[in-house]
Amino acid sequence: MTPSPSPPAGGTNASPQPHGDSIDFQPRKAAIIGVGLLGGSIGLALRRRWPSIEVFGSSRSEKKRQRALQTGCVTTACEDERAACRDADLIFICTPVGLIAEKAIQLAACCPEHALLTDVGSTKRKIVDTVESDARAAAKFVGSHPIAGGEKTGPEHATADLFENKRVVVTPTERTAADRLTRTIALWQALGAEVLQLSPSVHDDQLAGVSHATHFASCAVASILREDEITLIGSGWRDTTRVAAGDPQMWSDIAAQNAAPITVRLRAIRQQLDALIDAIDAEDRDTLMRLLTAAQQLRQCVPAPDSIRAPDSIPAPESAAETDSDA
Amino acid sequence: MTPSPSPPAGGTNASPQPHGDSIDFQPRKAAIIGVGLLGGSIGLALRRRWPSIEVFGSSRSEKKRQRALQTGCVTTACEDERAACRDADLIFICTPVGLIAEKAIQLAACCPEHALLTDVGSTKRKIVDTVESDARAAAKFVGSHPIAGGEKTGPEHATADLFENKRVVVTPTERTAADRLTRTIALWQALGAEVLQLSPSVHDDQLAGVSHATHFASCAVASILREDEITLIGSGWRDTTRVAAGDPQMWSDIAAQNAAPITVRLRAIRQQLDALIDAIDAEDRDTLMRLLTAAQQLRQCVPAPDSIRAPDSIPAPESAAETDSDA
Repeated sequence: MTPSPSPPAGGTNASPQPHGDSIDFQPRKAAIIGVGLLGGSIGLALRRRWPSIEVFGSSRSEKKRQRALQTGCVTTACEDERAACRDADLIFICTPVGLIAEKAIQLAACCPEHALLTDVGSTKRKIVDTVESDARAAAKFVGSHPIAGGEKTGPEHATADLFENKRVVVTPTERTAADRLTRTIALWQALGAEVLQLSPSVHDDQLAGVSHATHFASCAVASILREDEITLIGSGWRDTTRVAAGDPQMWSDIAAQNAAPITVRLRAIRQQLDALIDAIDAEDRDTLMRLLTAAQQLRQCVPAPDSIRAPDSIPAPESAAETDSDA
Repeated sequence: MTPSPSPPAGGTNASPQPHGDSIDFQPRKAAIIGVGLLGGSIGLALRRRWPSIEVFGSSRSEKKRQRALQTGCVTTACEDERAACRDADLIFICTPVGLIAEKAIQLAACCPEHALLTDVGSTKRKIVDTVESDARAAAKFVGSHPIAGGEKTGPEHATADLFENKRVVVTPTERTAADRLTRTIALWQALGAEVLQLSPSVHDDQLAGVSHATHFASCAVASILREDEITLIGSGWRDTTRVAAGDPQMWSDIAAQNAAPITVRLRAIRQQLDALIDAIDAEDRDTLMRLLTAAQQLRQCVPAPDSIRAPDSIPAPESAAETDSDA
């Protein structure tokens, strides 16, 4: 396992690294800043992989610290982030995205020289740019984004296998230290993930497409519900709007971190909506069929959740109706 | 069980009828025109409820007729719809929505005088209007729409319990015969459903909101996927776009049957999208938080799938983030 320390080409995904169980370092102490679902799951996964590791978790919430201890996510819980990072080999910043860069810079100043700092934020460009404006933090930090999670939050829902067969994007730049990148990749692989490398801006552009803009579009759909229609809701509405139940504060932070790529994608969605409205208004069946068939083909080319590799090509469309269609 | 034969008030949902096992008639023969997932499930449910019933199923597809026989959805399969309806007490029209009214009129002319004709179409106003333009069909027909189904199609996926604890909307009008309405309600209740009555136009307006427009919006989201982003897809994108895999022909038919209510709702969704785009562009956190919180509250007021009754009121918002949020 000798991943290249250079950043990937701008516009395309690097292939995922093969799943590796080997890792050439033995972390003795990890610090997790923010012990929620992701931070807690990192703690459990680290302890399963290296049973003797010390895992210090910090949270401002006394209740969350207690739950993290009770569920075994951490071996020590503390309020003071700096204390958690003292002597740590690994530091995971699992706070809301708006706080990550600031904490990385602060903690890089007080953690050991050899420490690796990483994060789990679902935006990367602003975080990495800000961290790299500080030489000491730039030397220790590699951006990470595990594509894993769930609607349930808090350390009580953490699981040691949350990252098993999930993708983790790491986002090196020209300033990233080669040894830190190697260690970051090996670390996520040791926790069961498939790692791929993207530049921070390509990451943000692509995540805007498959996650961030999707979230806001789902909120727009949920917004128009009328209370007297609740009794008529079926599985279609339920699934299409599931993510709209997410934390407004968190998504507002994400919007602030990745505004331009998100609004580009939201405008593309709006353009598609307009085309559908126009075709329905004009009773233009040919255009409507073309738009619906294109959407169906794109949706059907996505592999099942347990198969995380992309198909070689987009398959021919197959009918998979929501309800019945027979004459 | 004495449901009122008069249509419900225009703007509000009638309360669902209590689940009833009693039914004051014993159907001897049913005909199912179009034996797919819904038609096949009706066949299985009828045979479970009345083991001696004859169920004739018609389909243009030889393969589908064979599968319907093999899975026990029907006792006799035939290509000729008129033959299927001869001597039938109950006739379920389970074809694409664009064909239902025409078939109801045709079959009303050749079925017994006492027969009840109903359907499973997810639009109602155009169907009921057209059927009621024919006096003989109007006397025998009651519109139905079971809010049940799935992505899997065909009689091989039919189940006898598809309608258990699901809602079925029946859509009587001033022209609906009281005895047929009573029988339609009792029938769906006998198959396990909770029945509610709505006028055809209220049904279509509300279904545009919770199903039809949602479907087209989901297609718009799926449409903007770029092939190099497939590897980054998580559960959020997957759920938000699930219904976009549905049959374009079926949804194009639905759009043609319910164009105005659907485009009204799509414009409402677009207006919400515009408000989100504007707030993100302007870095207006207050507005963004207000929009996201409103969507979250609406999404959270929807009861879990196994609890089909609406809550008394919309509860206070609770944070339920998609990923982590802890500092």
